[in-house]
Amino acid sequence: MSKSVFVGELTWKEYAARVAQGDCVMLLPVGALEQHGHHMCMNVDVLLPTAVCKQVAERIDALVLPGLQYGYKSQQKSGGGNHFPGTTSLDGATLTGTVQDIIRELARHGARRLVLMNGHYENSMFIVEGIDLALRELRYAGITDFRVVVLSYWDFIRDPAVIEALYPEGFLGWDIEHGGVFETSLMLALYPHLVDMDKVVDHPPATFPPYDVFPVIPERTPACGTLSSARGASREKGELILRVCTEGIAAAVQEAFATPS
Amino acid sequence: MSKSVFVGELTWKEYAARVAQGDCVMLLPVGALEQHGHHMCMNVDVLLPTAVCKQVAERIDALVLPGLQYGYKSQQKSGGGNHFPGTTSLDGATLTGTVQDIIRELARHGARRLVLMNGHYENSMFIVEGIDLALRELRYAGITDFRVVVLSYWDFIRDPAVIEALYPEGFLGWDIEHGGVFETSLMLALYPHLVDMDKVVDHPPATFPPYDVFPVIPERTPACGTLSSARGASREKGELILRVCTEGIAAAVQEAFATPS
Amino acid sequence: MSKSVFVGELTWKEYAARVAQGDCVMLLPVGALEQHGHHMCMNVDVLLPTAVCKQVAERIDALVLPGLQYGYKSQQKSGGGNHFPGTTSLDGATLTGTVQDIIRELARHGARRLVLMNGHYENSMFIVEGIDLALRELRYAGITDFRVVVLSYWDFIRDPAVIEALYPEGFLGWDIEHGGVFETSLMLALYPHLVDMDKVVDHPPATFPPYDVFPVIPERTPACGTLSSARGASREKGELILRVCTEGIAAAVQEAFATPS
Amino acid sequence: MSKSVFVGELTWKEYAARVAQGDCVMLLPVGALEQHGHHMCMNVDVLLPTAVCKQVAERIDALVLPGLQYGYKSQQKSGGGNHFPGTTSLDGATLTGTVQDIIRELARHGARRLVLMNGHYENSMFIVEGIDLALRELRYAGITDFRVVVLSYWDFIRDPAVIEALYPEGFLGWDIEHGGVFETSLMLALYPHLVDMDKVVDHPPATFPPYDVFPVIPERTPACGTLSSARGASREKGELILRVCTEGIAAAVQEAFATPS
Amino acid sequence: MSKSVFVGELTWKEYAARVAQGDCVMLLPVGALEQHGHHMCMNVDVLLPTAVCKQVAERIDALVLPGLQYGYKSQQKSGGGNHFPGTTSLDGATLTGTVQDIIRELARHGARRLVLMNGHYENSMFIVEGIDLALRELRYAGITDFRVVVLSYWDFIRDPAVIEALYPEGFLGWDIEHGGVFETSLMLALYPHLVDMDKVVDHPPATFPPYDVFPVIPERTPACGTLSSARGASREKGELILRVCTEGIAAAVQEAFATPS
Amino acid sequence: MSKSVFVGELTWKEYAARVAQGDCVMLLPVGALEQHGHHMCMNVDVLLPTAVCKQVAERIDALVLPGLQYGYKSQQKSGGGNHFPGTTSLDGATLTGTVQDIIRELARHGARRLVLMNGHYENSMFIVEGIDLALRELRYAGITDFRVVVLSYWDFIRDPAVIEALYPEGFLGWDIEHGGVFETSLMLALYPHLVDMDKVVDHPPATFPPYDVFPVIPERTPACGTLSSARGASREKGELILRVCTEGIAAAVQEAFATPS
Repeated sequence: MSKSVFVGELTWKEYAARVAQGDCVMLLPVGALEQHGHHMCMNVDVLLPTAVCKQVAERIDALVLPGLQYGYKSQQKSGGGNHFPGTTSLDGATLTGTVQDIIRELARHGARRLVLMNGHYENSMFIVEGIDLALRELRYAGITDFRVVVLSYWDFIRDPAVIEALYPEGFLGWDIEHGGVFETSLMLALYPHLVDMDKVVDHPPATFPPYDVFPVIPERTPACGTLSSARGASREKGELILRVCTEGIAAAVQEAFATPS
Repeated sequence: MSKSVFVGELTWKEYAARVAQGDCVMLLPVGALEQHGHHMCMNVDVLLPTAVCKQVAERIDALVLPGLQYGYKSQQKSGGGNHFPGTTSLDGATLTGTVQDIIRELARHGARRLVLMNGHYENSMFIVEGIDLALRELRYAGITDFRVVVLSYWDFIRDPAVIEALYPEGFLGWDIEHGGVFETSLMLALYPHLVDMDKVVDHPPATFPPYDVFPVIPERTPACGTLSSARGASREKGELILRVCTEGIAAAVQEAFATPS
Repeated sequence: MSKSVFVGELTWKEYAARVAQGDCVMLLPVGALEQHGHHMCMNVDVLLPTAVCKQVAERIDALVLPGLQYGYKSQQKSGGGNHFPGTTSLDGATLTGTVQDIIRELARHGARRLVLMNGHYENSMFIVEGIDLALRELRYAGITDFRVVVLSYWDFIRDPAVIEALYPEGFLGWDIEHGGVFETSLMLALYPHLVDMDKVVDHPPATFPPYDVFPVIPERTPACGTLSSARGASREKGELILRVCTEGIAAAVQEAFATPS
Repeated sequence: MSKSVFVGELTWKEYAARVAQGDCVMLLPVGALEQHGHHMCMNVDVLLPTAVCKQVAERIDALVLPGLQYGYKSQQKSGGGNHFPGTTSLDGATLTGTVQDIIRELARHGARRLVLMNGHYENSMFIVEGIDLALRELRYAGITDFRVVVLSYWDFIRDPAVIEALYPEGFLGWDIEHGGVFETSLMLALYPHLVDMDKVVDHPPATFPPYDVFPVIPERTPACGTLSSARGASREKGELILRVCTEGIAAAVQEAFATPS
Repeated sequence: MSKSVFVGELTWKEYAARVAQGDCVMLLPVGALEQHGHHMCMNVDVLLPTAVCKQVAERIDALVLPGLQYGYKSQQKSGGGNHFPGTTSLDGATLTGTVQDIIRELARHGARRLVLMNGHYENSMFIVEGIDLALRELRYAGITDFRVVVLSYWDFIRDPAVIEALYPEGFLGWDIEHGGVFETSLMLALYPHLVDMDKVVDHPPATFPPYDVFPVIPERTPACGTLSSARGASREKGELILRVCTEGIAAAVQEAFATPS
Repeated sequence: MSKSVFVGELTWKEYAARVAQGDCVMLLPVGALEQHGHHMCMNVDVLLPTAVCKQVAERIDALVLPGLQYGYKSQQKSGGGNHFPGTTSLDGATLTGTVQDIIRELARHGARRLVLMNGHYENSMFIVEGIDLALRELRYAGITDFRVVVLSYWDFIRDPAVIEALYPEGFLGWDIEHGGVFETSLMLALYPHLVDMDKVVDHPPATFPPYDVFPVIPERTPACGTLSSARGASREKGELILRVCTEGIAAAVQEAFATPS
């Protein structure tokens, strides 16, 4: 049996031994099943944070929990909207409850360090609520040393030189990167068989008014579902992103758990 | 009895008459009770959207519902964190339920147009969830023509000239505007007796790593609670903001309800 | 900045200093948005307990939290029923959750004394449940000295002489005082511009069978929405009520927190 | 097999035949497990409404559903408080959910007329909420002709002559009748073996301030648990109560379902 | 007043005295209101575990709590399905909440030993969840010595000789014993007036495919509602079952609470 | 881009085209993260139903949704108990909510046929509840033709000859097959690198009393976590199981959706 960074591929004894070391970091990818345009599969938001988690885990000797496969409802300005067929989303309370339950269980195992790596923009606040409710419960149980880090892996692309390399014609913001150059490049680097660059629809970046309307007005989203064109994506960019994210996150995680709680 | 834009100040007959007109827009301020530094009171996030709602309502003949006084938990990077005394926050489900209940009731009244004007960054996603759950219920009840607009009033400051006027030394992002120039200027224009500019703590803008840690590490927030200095605030800036927001939002609301659903 | 009894008008530092004194009493008005007949506005149940709270707070050096603007569903025998346009009510769980959340937060601040001043008959049991759930949680957190007082301000009119003064033709019970002499007099004393005595509908007291029917049978409620006529209301009566309630509640609160827990 | 008024004692075919008649009234006793002093058993609040339901059912050809055995938390001023051993209470949401579930199922069966007969003061509002949530759901299901009556059987003692007969020394209000003359007399008439008049503690009526304190201050409740003395109870009074309640409720139920919905 | 094993028939003082002994076992019957064929009443699943609880309680000096009258939704392969008129079921969360609430209250009384005696197959997992949530809460409250036993009384028929006596033509499994020989025999021994053997429908045992379909396909259940014929039922078999279950459960309960926790 | 049976690997357009055909069957694996002894990884209950789903999908042209990675709490008699480190379980409400949300979304997409393939014994009833709540909601939305099949793949091993081949020394029941011959053989056939037969602990089958105790008594579970020895497992048995399950389930699914709803 191979030594895996994936918790699901360990026996409980192997896992218990790791947790018993006291400082083992658990990484939980939090994704979604969501349309990503005509050129890309729908589990991008699971695959990408899982891949980043795997690389980070190998680097800092952490473990990766089975990723959450479904996320919060796609919003028009960040994911196109929840009206697309295929996009399969949870109510906020369900996502929050899932995070809360997992933290409660990890604490029971003896783990005290968790990183939630988000791959779907809309998940963030429901993850935060799950953490808050879980830590509240843990305090009731007398556990006060459980620390959680939350991050969205794309937030680690901060170096202007990297942004310039990725977006030589100018960066337009993470909000419209849904199915665009960023995610597509990463998929090309990691899962090229799940991308079909010939199907990329080359449209101008989506623009939205400074408000949201519900029920969603589908016509405001580009018909293909992406919010910016993936035309500029490349495997090389994906490899750059992966390297920068992995290095940045590995360092951040170590820093975050080094500070005393 | 004065003709008021505030629903709470109308009799039910007056309200019913307005709703019966069919196109009456309801505005709901959604705020918080949250620390806003040493120089400002804690109900800023209620007062400001309520004031904007009032001005918008007067301009477009809309009505303003009683504002939500408590909001979602303050996050470190946008509000300093939920560890401050005074900051009094709701669980996500409570805020979501409140929004859902109010929409259900408005629909019963016959209203079909609602604007949720958010004054507290952290509320957004829980408002969205409340809307989604409410519209789902309304569909079960056979009501499909209820339209909701959600906005944060600061998102209507988009004109570079205005931003330049407000931040001659450079704009650093809405995220760290908590208790800073923007909110303080508006308060100076609207409620100067609730601001004490002498108590402004002049600190450099808060900076945060690209991840969040829970439980919060209080030291990462400037001790006074603001995320950027309010030193540059002025009544004149507040009046500018108010005018730009009111005009922008009034136009946006009319546009949003003009498009057929 | 003025010294206010309203928590929302204090800075967090001012609030923290008050709480640090240990014996600071917090007052929370709990209201509703509900029809109150043809002659009165719909936020009576918020305005009145807030005004009483303010006067009590000034007298005993307490603080007043932002009031709850929405309450539990109007019942036919006490508020006319929840079928009126304008009446905007919460599900029981939402009101309960709001109370629970606020208590949890106050306890975190260090406060230990809370008075919930109810202004809407139907709220009572859902407030009680919120308190019970919150105190249960606080016990889990090891906090056992948080004490809560709940009251409806009208219950402090007990002196037969006062009742005689208010109702020279005989008192018919609090249950049908919805929009009647009691509330209208208080409004005349406090917010005369929100009352139009010319619009009072002078009808005999509502009578109901000793059971309730759901869905409500609207015809059982007087068409104007009040359950007894406000014809006998006066500013003088309102001032009397206000004085008696304020004095009685101030004394009661001091008594309630004097007994050791 | 005997023809029973109790749904639980019918076969499903017998029940289905009754429901198919269209106008069959279902009666649901809603009780509690609660201390009732030193002289009486703890299931009084189930036994009494069940007995009244049985008599009403026999009179108007209705059916009696299995009663709810557990109720909402005992309150100090109406039941002594929820701190007594033996008193076993539900959270509000649980009681509400039970009522909601039962109504949903009755509607599925084809029933359209339900009477909730409450035997425990504190249940009322949570029953009301259960009804409201259930009827809301039924509307979503397209069912708008389900009518529910809620009553507390003691509210049918309204005739001054009867009150005079029961309380020759003056009636003090239903609120302190917990374990007093009223309930004890009924038990003597119906279940004399569950009453021990020798153990009645003869204390003056409980008096309470016009507010509630949480956590409860146990000393405010008479140590035996009753709120007024049962000394004046008698089998004859119980028979009178039973007759008056049965007649009044039978008439009320027929009246309530006669009016068109 | 008779000494009863039923908690509901004790005064709170009697109950308190029993609980104060420290080792008192509480028994809670958990039933359902569910069709049981043409020949038997619908409260079988309450009556039978209650009767077994009574006999066990008398034997081991335990107490019996008021039974839960409504259970989880009938499933086609174990109860015929939830589409029959009369079958009146709770949502899972309601049953779970009821169990949780009762355990919380028993713990408050000082009780530490509870047996949940299930009489309705479909209840099991929702009971388990209620226990788990309650024990979690009790841990937060610092109570770690509350022990719960869950059992379905039919699981104590394990002796092949007994099974042979009950099913001389072969035992087909508990799953299809709904309304069959087992339950009918017990009813004949305990409540013969609630059984009409002339109405037994003699059909071959129900057979089902190895999967479930929702919405249920009613035709897959025998039209009468039983899953196997009760033709072979007899009072003698019922007495045998009762004796074996009572003895087995009494011994099991003593064993379960003898082991240190 | 390869044509995949996995929904996550399709673009939304490909998925939409499949759903538009009207009769497309969706398969949802429902698993757990649970200890499976010393010799096997912890994601067995996800891997196995996913593999069966894949084979069934290829055979009947169905699609496989992303599997649920976490399941309900492990029970002692079927999974060893929820006290093991590594076993990471959800509250019942979370699992139920997840199933409900996914069904609601599939219905929105236009899908009408879903198979939930369970790989973790304890999930069953919470899946059933999720389905029931979802179909109830769909009825409110006017959708009555959504059909769901639930199955546990091991229930398709019914042929005595197959059971004889798998268990030449006698079959002891599915309940104690946790981590035993059945699951281990399948893993050997499908994921041999995740099994280490050298680590199999050869113990006699676990035996349990006919009741459950909470909190769990860990000593009652074999220390290694399996409930029966996997010693007799083999790749050949796994291939046999896989073939029998795949064929049986494929036929069952076609049969289940052929019957008119």
